[in-house]
Amino acid sequence: MTKHSNDLDTLFAALSDPTRRALLTRLARGPATLSELHSAHDMALPSLMAHVKKLETAGLISSQKQGRIRTCRLTPGAFTPVQSWLEEQHRLWTGRLDRFDAYVTQLAHPSQEHTDDARPKD
Amino acid sequence: MTKHSNDLDTLFAALSDPTRRALLTRLARGPATLSELHSAHDMALPSLMAHVKKLETAGLISSQKQGRIRTCRLTPGAFTPVQSWLEEQHRLWTGRLDRFDAYVTQLAHPSQEHTDDARPKD
Repeated sequence: MTKHSNDLDTLFAALSDPTRRALLTRLARGPATLSELHSAHDMALPSLMAHVKKLETAGLISSQKQGRIRTCRLTPGAFTPVQSWLEEQHRLWTGRLDRFDAYVTQLAHPSQEHTDDARPKD
Repeated sequence: MTKHSNDLDTLFAALSDPTRRALLTRLARGPATLSELHSAHDMALPSLMAHVKKLETAGLISSQKQGRIRTCRLTPGAFTPVQSWLEEQHRLWTGRLDRFDAYVTQLAHPSQEHTDDARPKD
């Protein structure tokens, strides 16, 4: 498996949990300390820290400790691989629909391609 | 947890596997039979079918059986909830950077706000 695939595995898995998505949404507004994040979630601190750790491992956030305070930040461009993958699917899907349109047009106006046919003109 | 959150949980979890992403990429190009999908993947048919089932449960694809042939299709708009969630994060992040820009501008030109304040109304 390529590194890029592994990245996407980890990224999508990190995004598959509502607490982790809520943490990301909070951090998209700006940095927050671990205790600020904890106060917004009804769960034990170790559980919250496990979610934070998963987001860090996926490269979606980073954290820094100063004294006893750990501050978390969203990683700039964190969602780029996910966004790129989605755009690729969209490009393939749109390309497919364009080919389908061309096919339907060809079915509706078959004479355009075969003007040399012996078929008598109306 | 809201239905929407559950949807996102299932969608992101479905996308966290390289085989399932490869199946989606194949189906973005157009429908394919189960045996066509199987021939492109070096795994036992039951394993492949389990991946197909997960994609169906997440609403990303649908499948239809005619005789002994099952054909799979990408669901139109399948990625919309994921795309919307990403756009919301981008909007929050950009809004934050805009506020940061305004703050830095204010720091650099602190007099501007006071001038505005003191300016008599038209």
